[in-house]
Formats: sequence, C-alpha cells, structure tokens
Amino acid sequence: MTVHTGRHFLQIPGPTNVPDRVLRAMDMPTLDHRGPEFAELGFAVMAASQRIFRTKQPVIIYPSSGTGAWEAAIVNTLAPGDKVLMAETGQFAVLWKGIADKFKLDVDFISGDWRHGADIAAIEQRLVEDKAHKIKAVCVVHNETSTGCLTPPLEMRKALDRAGHPALLMVDTISGLGSMEYEHDAWGVDVSVAGSQKGLMLPPGLGFNAVSEKALAAAKANPGMRSYWDWQEVITFNKLGTFPYTPACNLLMGLHEALKMLEEEGHENVFARHRRHSLATRAAVKAWGLDTQCADPQAHSPALTGVVMPEGHDADAFRKTVLENFDMSLGTGLNKIKGKVFRIGHIGHFNDLMLMGTLSGVEMGLALANVPHRAGGVLAAMDVLKAREAAPIPKVA
Amino acid sequence: MTVHTGRHFLQIPGPTNVPDRVLRAMDMPTLDHRGPEFAELGFAVMAASQRIFRTKQPVIIYPSSGTGAWEAAIVNTLAPGDKVLMAETGQFAVLWKGIADKFKLDVDFISGDWRHGADIAAIEQRLVEDKAHKIKAVCVVHNETSTGCLTPPLEMRKALDRAGHPALLMVDTISGLGSMEYEHDAWGVDVSVAGSQKGLMLPPGLGFNAVSEKALAAAKANPGMRSYWDWQEVITFNKLGTFPYTPACNLLMGLHEALKMLEEEGHENVFARHRRHSLATRAAVKAWGLDTQCADPQAHSPALTGVVMPEGHDADAFRKTVLENFDMSLGTGLNKIKGKVFRIGHIGHFNDLMLMGTLSGVEMGLALANVPHRAGGVLAAMDVLKAREAAPIPKVA
Amino acid sequence: MTVHTGRHFLQIPGPTNVPDRVLRAMDMPTLDHRGPEFAELGFAVMAASQRIFRTKQPVIIYPSSGTGAWEAAIVNTLAPGDKVLMAETGQFAVLWKGIADKFKLDVDFISGDWRHGADIAAIEQRLVEDKAHKIKAVCVVHNETSTGCLTPPLEMRKALDRAGHPALLMVDTISGLGSMEYEHDAWGVDVSVAGSQKGLMLPPGLGFNAVSEKALAAAKANPGMRSYWDWQEVITFNKLGTFPYTPACNLLMGLHEALKMLEEEGHENVFARHRRHSLATRAAVKAWGLDTQCADPQAHSPALTGVVMPEGHDADAFRKTVLENFDMSLGTGLNKIKGKVFRIGHIGHFNDLMLMGTLSGVEMGLALANVPHRAGGVLAAMDVLKAREAAPIPKVA
Amino acid sequence: MTVHTGRHFLQIPGPTNVPDRVLRAMDMPTLDHRGPEFAELGFAVMAASQRIFRTKQPVIIYPSSGTGAWEAAIVNTLAPGDKVLMAETGQFAVLWKGIADKFKLDVDFISGDWRHGADIAAIEQRLVEDKAHKIKAVCVVHNETSTGCLTPPLEMRKALDRAGHPALLMVDTISGLGSMEYEHDAWGVDVSVAGSQKGLMLPPGLGFNAVSEKALAAAKANPGMRSYWDWQEVITFNKLGTFPYTPACNLLMGLHEALKMLEEEGHENVFARHRRHSLATRAAVKAWGLDTQCADPQAHSPALTGVVMPEGHDADAFRKTVLENFDMSLGTGLNKIKGKVFRIGHIGHFNDLMLMGTLSGVEMGLALANVPHRAGGVLAAMDVLKAREAAPIPKVA
Repeated sequence: MTVHTGRHFLQIPGPTNVPDRVLRAMDMPTLDHRGPEFAELGFAVMAASQRIFRTKQPVIIYPSSGTGAWEAAIVNTLAPGDKVLMAETGQFAVLWKGIADKFKLDVDFISGDWRHGADIAAIEQRLVEDKAHKIKAVCVVHNETSTGCLTPPLEMRKALDRAGHPALLMVDTISGLGSMEYEHDAWGVDVSVAGSQKGLMLPPGLGFNAVSEKALAAAKANPGMRSYWDWQEVITFNKLGTFPYTPACNLLMGLHEALKMLEEEGHENVFARHRRHSLATRAAVKAWGLDTQCADPQAHSPALTGVVMPEGHDADAFRKTVLENFDMSLGTGLNKIKGKVFRIGHIGHFNDLMLMGTLSGVEMGLALANVPHRAGGVLAAMDVLKAREAAPIPKVA
Repeated sequence: MTVHTGRHFLQIPGPTNVPDRVLRAMDMPTLDHRGPEFAELGFAVMAASQRIFRTKQPVIIYPSSGTGAWEAAIVNTLAPGDKVLMAETGQFAVLWKGIADKFKLDVDFISGDWRHGADIAAIEQRLVEDKAHKIKAVCVVHNETSTGCLTPPLEMRKALDRAGHPALLMVDTISGLGSMEYEHDAWGVDVSVAGSQKGLMLPPGLGFNAVSEKALAAAKANPGMRSYWDWQEVITFNKLGTFPYTPACNLLMGLHEALKMLEEEGHENVFARHRRHSLATRAAVKAWGLDTQCADPQAHSPALTGVVMPEGHDADAFRKTVLENFDMSLGTGLNKIKGKVFRIGHIGHFNDLMLMGTLSGVEMGLALANVPHRAGGVLAAMDVLKAREAAPIPKVA
Repeated sequence: MTVHTGRHFLQIPGPTNVPDRVLRAMDMPTLDHRGPEFAELGFAVMAASQRIFRTKQPVIIYPSSGTGAWEAAIVNTLAPGDKVLMAETGQFAVLWKGIADKFKLDVDFISGDWRHGADIAAIEQRLVEDKAHKIKAVCVVHNETSTGCLTPPLEMRKALDRAGHPALLMVDTISGLGSMEYEHDAWGVDVSVAGSQKGLMLPPGLGFNAVSEKALAAAKANPGMRSYWDWQEVITFNKLGTFPYTPACNLLMGLHEALKMLEEEGHENVFARHRRHSLATRAAVKAWGLDTQCADPQAHSPALTGVVMPEGHDADAFRKTVLENFDMSLGTGLNKIKGKVFRIGHIGHFNDLMLMGTLSGVEMGLALANVPHRAGGVLAAMDVLKAREAAPIPKVA
Repeated sequence: MTVHTGRHFLQIPGPTNVPDRVLRAMDMPTLDHRGPEFAELGFAVMAASQRIFRTKQPVIIYPSSGTGAWEAAIVNTLAPGDKVLMAETGQFAVLWKGIADKFKLDVDFISGDWRHGADIAAIEQRLVEDKAHKIKAVCVVHNETSTGCLTPPLEMRKALDRAGHPALLMVDTISGLGSMEYEHDAWGVDVSVAGSQKGLMLPPGLGFNAVSEKALAAAKANPGMRSYWDWQEVITFNKLGTFPYTPACNLLMGLHEALKMLEEEGHENVFARHRRHSLATRAAVKAWGLDTQCADPQAHSPALTGVVMPEGHDADAFRKTVLENFDMSLGTGLNKIKGKVFRIGHIGHFNDLMLMGTLSGVEMGLALANVPHRAGGVLAAMDVLKAREAAPIPKVA
C-alpha cells in the first residue's frame, strides 16, 4: 500500500485528474438502463457529446477504451484488403496501424520522425497519385499523445479536397477532444475517435465515434464482420435514449457532469487554458535548457509536452525519482523513444498552481536525478502564467 | 428530473444494487495505469477474479459490456464457417447466437420453449452424431436472465465427455457468477463469460472471459481477425499487472472492493442467500396464484424469477404501474415473451427486507393494475425467510 | 466488522436514512469559511432554513447535536431562577427539563403518562393562575420521539393567548421539522429547536434555533452567561453569510442539498408522505393485535410509531432479534418504558417499499422472538399504501 | 457559482485539505448511535484519539467547533470569579480570553506583540507571586494560528512546577495536534483543546478535550453550570462506546479514517513533513525579501507561516488577487494585524508539490498585486525540498 501524504500529481497525458464533481456523479446508484430515467440521461449525454465534437451527426459511445473506438472506426467502414493511408506520427499512430493490420487492411504507413505532425504534403501526394481511388480512408492522429505533436485535421481535409479524393477522413482525437478546438462537421471529418480519460476528464472506460453521413453510408455498404462495434445498432437504440447492450451507466453519469463542467467553463475558455499551460510548460523546458520532443513550433500540443532527455540519461530512471520523491506520475517515452523522452500531461481538470506543482516536481526531479539542466524553469513558467489577461478564470452566474 | 423520496428499488436482474462500499471505492482519483500502484490493483483483481470463477487459469477483464465478453469468446476461438451448437434457452441465448451469426459461424441452434434450461440430451445427441467433430464449440447460458432458468454447466461437460467430443464448452454465466456456485476448472468449462453488473455488484462496464488451456490453444490456432478482444495480448500484459490498453481503472477499483465483500461474506454464504431469496420469491408467486416462467422445478434461478402474467394482462403496463407508484424497476419480458412476463431480480447486494419491499411492491402493483391474484404472497415469502437457521447473516472478525 | 449483504434498514426515529445526494454533497472538498464561495452557501442555507421553519426571522445553525440547540434556547433567553413550564410528554421532555435544571431554572414540570401529548389545558390553567407573570417560558415537545405523540404548537400558542400570558413559547421540533407541518411565524413560536438528523435527512451534527423578535429581545435583556450558543453573535456574522466560529462546512453543504430535495418534492408532499406512512404503520400494528404507545388518536406522530410489547416480552430482546436476523435497527424504549416499547421510525428519506421492508422485518421479528401477535400486519399496511390517489410520487420538470 | 478548472488550493491554516479517503469514509450511511456497530466505531476513535494526544486519559469528543472545546475546558473546571492567567499570543488567545470573560472569570491577560509565543517567564513570575494560589488555571495556545508562533507546553509545565503552583495547565492545540509533537501526559497538560479541521484533516465539526486526572477532579468539584459540555456525562457514556447525545456519526467515521492515515504514515513522519514544509516556506519568504510574522526563530510553526506585507500594501487586496487569479485561499490577518499579514497554511494532507503550487501562487500574486519582492522564492523552497534524505515519503506494507 502506498501512503499518500497529499494528492498524487497524475501528470501523465491521460488518464487525467478527474474532477470531484465527476467522481461524485458516478458515485450514485446505478439505474435501469431500459427505464425512463436512464433515457433522460442517454439523450442528455448524446446531445452534449455532439456539442463538444461540434457535430449534428450521431456520436456513438462505447463501453470501451479508446482502442476500442479505433477498432470501431475501422470495422464499420473498411473490409479486409481495403487500402488506407496512415501517418506515423508516433506510438499511437503505430498502434492504430497495428489494428488496421490485424483487420487485414492494406496500410500505406507514411513514415515520420515522431517529432512532427503528419506529413500532409506527402499524404496529399499519395492521394493525387491514387487516380483509381483505391484508398478508402486516410487516418491521422490529431494530438499524438506519445510526442505532443499536432496534426491539423482541417489541413488534412483541405488536402483531400484539393486532391479531389473521396477517401474517408478518420481522425483520432482521443487526447485532443475537450482540450483543444475540434470541429467534426466544419472540418469535414468522417470518423472522429475519442476516449473518456483525457480532455473529457473522466476515468477510462468510454470510447467515442462521431460519424459523418458519408461514413454511415460507407458502413452500410461495408460487408465486414462486426457486432459490438456496429454503429447502426447503436444509432437505432440511441433514438430511444438507450443502447443495444447494457451501457456503462455510471460512466455515462460522470460524462454528463463532465460535459456540463466544460460548458460551464465555456469550451473556448477550456481550450485557451490548455494553450496557456502548454506555453508555460515550454517556457520551463526552454529555461531548463532541454528540448521538446515536438520539433515543429506550429505543432505543439496544448495537452501535453514531450521532453527529450539529455544524452546518457534515462527518462524512466528520472520518472522513478520523481514518483518516489514527489508522488507525481509523468508519462514514459513509448516504443522507440523509450528512455529518451518523458511527457508532462497538462490536460483536463487543471489549473495554474497544479501546473506549478507539476513543473516544480520536474525541476526538483532533474536535480535529484542528476540530469544536466539550468534551474529556474519554474520562474519562466510563472512569467507566462502571470500574464493573466490572456486567460482569466471564468465565472458563471 | 425524477424525485426519489427514498431509495429506488432496482429489481431488474441486472444492473443490480451496487453496494455503497463499491461505489465509494470507484469514487477515488484515477491512477497511472502503467505505474506501480496500479499494478498492485491489477494483480489483486486478477487473483480475486480467479477465486470467484474457481479457476487457476487466466481471467481476462475487458472494458466492455457482457456482450463484448460474448464476442470475445467467439472471435478468439472460432473462425467464419466453424460449426457451433447453441441452445435457445431465452433471449440472451438468442442474442449470443446473433453474434455468432454476425461472425459467420455455422450455428446449430437447438430450439427451446424459454421455460427450461438447455436440452442437454438433445445437445448430446448432436455431439454423438458429429463423428467428424465438425462442431467446434458448444455454447450454453448458465443462468438465462430472460427466463430465470438454469442450465447446469457440469451436466453439459458430462454430456461432452460421454460423447467423447472435443468441442469447446463455452458458458455464459453473466448473471450467474457471484450469485450461485460456479466452477470454471472443476466443471471443465473452456470459456466462461461474465459481466460486472449482476452478482459481482458493480455498475456495468466490465466483461470477463475465464479461459481454459484448451481454449487458449484453440485461440492460438485460430486465424480469425481480432484485436481489442485478443486474449493473448491481455494475458501478456497481465503478467506485469497491467493491460494492453487503458483499462477502466475506477471500475477495477470497484471490482477489487466487490470481490473483497463477497469473500468477507463467504462465497458459500452468498450463494445460500440467493437460493433462499429465490425460494421466498417463488413462495410468493405461488401464493399469488401465478406461474413462474421457469417450468422446471430443478432449474429455478437463485438470481431472478420470471413471472407469467395472467392471460389478457400486459406485463409492461403492470411494470409501469409499479415504477410510477412504488419507484421500483422490474425486468421486462424480452422478445417473444414481451408483455407476457415480468422479472424480479433478487441478485447481488440484497437482503431479506429489501426482498420484502420488492415483493410488497409487486403485490401492491398487481392490485393497482387489476391483475387477478390472491393477496398474501408476502406472507408466504416471510414464512420462508423466517426459517433463519438456513442462512444466518454472516459476521467476520 | 459487520457484514452487510444489502442495505441496513435504519428505522430508528433518527438518525434517519440520509439520501445519497446529501451524502455526496457533503463529500466534497471543504472550503474557506471566510471566502466568497462559502458566503454563497451560507446565505443559501439560511434562506432555505427559513423556508422549512416557515419564518422570516433568523434561523441560527450550530455545529452541535439537537441537545445543544435545546441548551441554546435556554441560555439565550433565561437566567438562573427563572420560572418555566415544561410538560412531561416523554424522555425528550425529561432530558430538556434536565438541562433546564442544570441551568438552575425553576421548572414546573407538568406530569404526563408518556402516551399523550402535553396537557395543554393544565398548562393553560397554570398560566392563568400566574397573574404575576413569573413564568418566563413554556417549553413543549412538538413530536415526542420517545413515544410518537404530538403536541400541537398552535394549540399551545392559543392557550397562551387566551391566558394573556407573555411567556415565551419554546418548541422542540427536533424530530418534527421536515416531516410534518411546522409554522414558526404563523403559530407564534418564539424559539423553535431542531436538529439535522431527522426529517432534515442529514447526519447528526447540526442544531437549529429559529427565533422570534420577542425571543431576541428576551435574549438581549438576559444577563445569563453564554458564548458558544449566543444568538446575537451568530446573527451578526450571518449577515455576511458567515459564522462567528468555524462552521461545520460539509454538513452545511449537505444541508443545502437536503433542503433542496425537500423543496423539489414539495414540503406539502413530504408531509403527506409521512402521514401516509404513519397510517400504514398503525394499520399494521393494529392487525398484529398490538397497541401503539400513543393512546390519543389525534396525537399520532407522522414520523415514528411507538409499539407496546405484550406483557412479559422484552422489547430489547425483540429488537436484538430483528437486528441480528434482518439487519434492521429499531428504536429502543427509553427510560421508564425501557423494554416495554419499541419504536419504528418512518421519517426522512423513505418510501413505500422501504416501509414494507421495515414492517416485514417487524412482523418476522415478532414471530422469531415468539411475541404473541397475529400475522398479516403487512397486508393491512399494503391496503393503506395501495390507496395511491392520496399521495402520488411527485415529479418535477 | 464559481467555476473551478482544477483543484482549489485551500491554503488557509484550517480548515485544511481533507483527504479523499476521509471524505469517502464520511460518505457512508449514517448509523444507529446506540447500536453495536456504532460502539465499535466509538471505541476505535476514542483509542486512536488517545494515541494522537499521547494520553491514557479520556479524550472527550464534541459535535462542535474548536471554540466549543475552548468553552468546554473553561466551564468544566472553572467557576465565575476564578482567576486565570492567559497569554496574548494572537487572535486565538484573544478569542479564548473572550470566552473566559463571558463566563466571568478573572483573567490576567499577559500582553504580547503577536510575533512571539507566550512570555513564559512573565507567567512564571505571576505564578511565583501568587502565594495564595488564587490562580486556578494557566491557559496557553500551543500553535497560535493567527501568527504562526509556537508556545511550548512543556516549558509552561516546567514553569508551573518550578513555581510549585497547583494551577491547571490548559493548552489550545487546535492547530497543533496532528501536525507537530504533542504529549498530553508527558508534558503534564491538564486540558488539551483541539478541533477536527486542522492537522486531523477532517472537515470542521468536532471539538476535543483531553483531560488529566487533576482536571477531572477539578471538574467534579466545580459548581459551575454546564450541560452540553459536561465531561462527566460523556465519560460515563463513552465507557459503552457511545455518547450522551447523538454524536456527529459521519464525522466520527471520518475521524476514524483520518487517524488511521496518520498512523499509516507514522506520527513522527507526519510531524517531520510539516517541519520540512515550514522550513521551505520560510526559505521562500526570506528569498522574497519579506518577513515572517513570527519574530522568534525558535517559535516558527510547522503548520503555518504568517507573512508581513510591506508597508503600504494591503494583505487582503493581495489575497483577493491570489484567489481570483489562482483559485487559492490564503489566510487573512486577524484583528490588529488585519491587512498587514497574510498566512500560508501548510498543514494537514499536504505534500511537496502542493506546497510548490502554493508558493508559486504566492509569488505570482505578489507580482500581480505589485507588492515589492524579489522573484525566486520558489527556487529557495525547492532547495529545501530537494534535500530528500530528511523526509522520505513513507511506505507501509
């Protein structure tokens, strides 16, 4: 058993710190998933989900991890042998590609250095070359959680349009939704994939697919086998406020509260808050004399910051030092950047002083782990945060 | 918004009444699913899950509904075209069969009247006839939640053995596990399917597969496509106390507490309690002059009781009367017994006085809905419950 | 450690069953009792408290038991040697009188048989005789929790008025407020005393004094020593939404939610519900062939029912049987009716099926404890409850 | 309604941050305060209370604020006209003295400058001069919450002993207990006064008196009027694990968990943690170029730090800036240091990163409020905290 003398700092980029209000909303008697009280809840969470995805289209909510929602996007729209374009932005792109492989898609995986967003020009080039329109879908990760690099879905949409290519645009915004602008409809996304445990401020256990009419049509035409993930059945039941199988009632009760909180703060304020915390974090990283994993100044994530360890120092040893000394969890480097990168999550239910606690823990950890750095990152971060006019704490009546 | 002036009586056969201790255990900060504190939890819930399934084999826990766990059983072990035997015990057998159909299995669905358990003799007959061993699996529902009829897995195993047939034995014990004896190993079950929201006393959101070595071997040999449900990957990660994708942390925290509570009471005591409540419920039904949906005296479920409405009376109108007048949810009749049957759940976190409140609500509802019946069912139930020596409330030090 | 296999039935007449919403409202981070967020809460609970007391006068809220609120009523308005009239309605009248004795008041304690409300005629007689107006206060218990007998404060007020006597009218409505009509202003009560753990549906820990202008004037003129209980200081701080010393913040958070729930249901509906449950309980008692402790048909409490044990049977042995066999707490007989009476609380967050569980537990307990009675009390109670038109479950938009 | 985008920083010196485990322990159904389950709880909290007070004597627990516990200490042992010595260490000494005045004690209030602990030499002088032993009690505040200055009770005891004076030693350790060494028995304290909402990590609502045999004897001999606060009655009931009136059950459930947490961490570790955080805070204050309110280097409180505002700057305007910009509550200057001092609480459930968030908020607030200071206080604090060997995070098996 671990003794916590105060609150654990959960600064991985998801699961994120769940607000008390959300935990308490989940901490209520579960209910008859076929009764009228549930239907009220069902309709409410569907409507609020549409608002955060910015869509008038159905949002399917699964009792699943985000991984499940990736799989759902694939098995609904694509069949074995279908060609898809994916972009290697980092580990989560690799994992999604792995699912595509398992479902025997023909994946063209455009390589990347894990320090930038997707190479949209390269994707566009492929699309232009694909005169026969064999490519059925383009899949990109909006906010690559393993690196902290963004790929703008709207730019992806524009590239598809410029190429005049009918492929579906599928976007993983698992760690993007709820912490940065997202426009499912306006950006012309066909399938948006999300999860509960990031910007939506919930514990893990819910996966989401927002689906365009085009995606729904593709699903109808798709002979591929599926049951649990089948959109159509969910949509049919959702019209009654219910689900084809027993939904994760209490997580939905939490979702209801979480989406309400995001609206009380105001979606725009939520996004501004994340940008500001990201800026302050990068100021600290720079002051420490370290590099961010994201090498493109236009692609820094508002939700997390990947930090490159100096040569010869192990990121996981550092993380262990921080955990054992300061009761803070930081994100590990994944796959090929294992040991080389650590990640600071500044996503979800978070404020300036939680960020300062977080950055102080990193700075002290760097010292304790004998990682070469300059002191004073926290001062640089405070300089950013003090510029309050950018983001006052919102109040509601 | 519904006004509850006291506690809602959630007497559907799942989701069941979740104990406060379990809700409170879920109502704690979520945690780093890759950190040491999570691993402790992971190992603990795996071990306790093995104890309730009575197995030394792996128990795979999914962030999913029970439906997902059905699908997992199928996609891990079977490939399109494989022949399976299933038995039509009721709606949940029909639904599981529907999944098998979607995954293009060749299902031999042995019909039933929804008032008995599976026809084991008929299944045995099929197995005996299947000299070529084309049947890859036999799938039965242990506790048919739509009717309240049991099918004993051990008898099924014996039939397989008598037939000398190598088919896998797959058992849905979604509404059985935790409320009645279950012996995954001793009964020779290959895949046991369960869910969190019944006898395990949790909100919905977790699915379970307990898997025999034979099932694991079948999975290894199975070329069928799968990713989310893939056992092997889960088992690999589980060795480290963790999961291949973000698990539903807070539901696992609840599972830990729920399994602890079942052990504090003693599994045998838990099962005896359910049997007793089932007996008392049937005494009430008989006193009312009504029939149970289960027509086999040997097959009555300890977890729920299906009650047949008198001809000309609609079960759902009755249920609505009960809900609106007494704030109690009863289970609806499903599919072909819609309107003809209602179900009383007496499963999970439950005691004598909750049962008496439940049966009183049914008796008053019958009166208010003008359903012909004799008064006094509650007296008959009390006669059963007063025979305390059968089941004292257990205490622990 | 006690194993609870379902919900404990807490059917003492207070503390009562606390609604989940109230517990969850208390289960939030505590807050700066001098900050603006607290002040919002402070103003809100004061206003809602005035609404439930039906007063425009101050309601003082103490971090205390109801006993403390009794003491507060006394030490604010009375000084040693002051003459007061009190009426022996039962144990709580005796206890309040005990406090008056400790503060050296000159108590005229009008005796009673513990089976009726206060003898208002006798009190009036004393008042009439007191030409010199030596009597400074008349103290009565609105709902005598030890017996289940009511004393109507309005009748008391009328008697004072008829006698033209200026004594203060002090009313203990600790177990009355929130479960039956109460009109601090309209009934001309000078000090109303209440507690959190009864009809207000909170855990114990808050005491209340509602105070008339006349009571405030008496307090100002009163030289008696006091500090913690001093009204004036509380009233002064309350104007800023705060308290002179650190208030029980989280209980106040719960109070806010509890008072909101009572308003959502509608105060009148709440009271009707209690009356109905009282009626059903008495029907059961009668059917069992037992007597209620309250011998006055006009004085039956809506909040609890005292039941007289047949000669030669010990109420506490019976209560122990019920607790051990059915996990239900019933109220003990107090003081001179110890062992002779048990009490059934039907107060607070409660509904028909909880009542039926309760009465079933009593009926089975009578059988198990070999107490002579007729079976079928539960049927009689159901006959009352089935008459739904009297008290439909209220809904709000 | 206030929107919190993350956790509020509650850095007043009480109420303090309540651990989730404690809130959750309170968030359970309340129980029969006369039943066996309550008695278990009652005995457990009494025993654990004795361990944290370090006494074998009774610890009386009131449903009250700490103010109530002050009053209890007085009314049990002293009667009007009794002479007592008190020391003006700050506002809480002033308030306690105010209660003594209200109960008509003859208080000799030894003045102080609010920047030091009690003047023990001056007190000793008075005691020596009091040949007739008219002084019945000496009352000191262990940890003066308004200033952050300590008065060592053991030194006070030694002075009494040197003077050979029989006066009772009464110590207010409301904000001391649970965050620093305390030895009721070994230090010869007669009455120790405490409250729940400081080092005990609970919401407000419980007051404590630990009482020596000598204090009990004094109480027995004391003719002063009292009821609610009367020790003897509580002690009598406590022998059965219960209380004379309805106790604040759910706060006691929280107390049980809080005292368990302090023991899991280890009392000594808890105290070392507070010392370390105090040291780090003072390092920051010094680096900012500001003064602590406590002017005696030997008297710095481990629980809070009072900081003097530079001339011409208003502490409350600064606090408002911090609250509005950083969602942190700091303690105000009280009474004669209103506007001149703010207070940083570092007491209770707290860790290094929470402290760093706190100090960052102060440093940024100083800048935003244009208070002259040097940047870099947070760096100085980190220098202290990095010296980990002094206080490793404890683990238990």
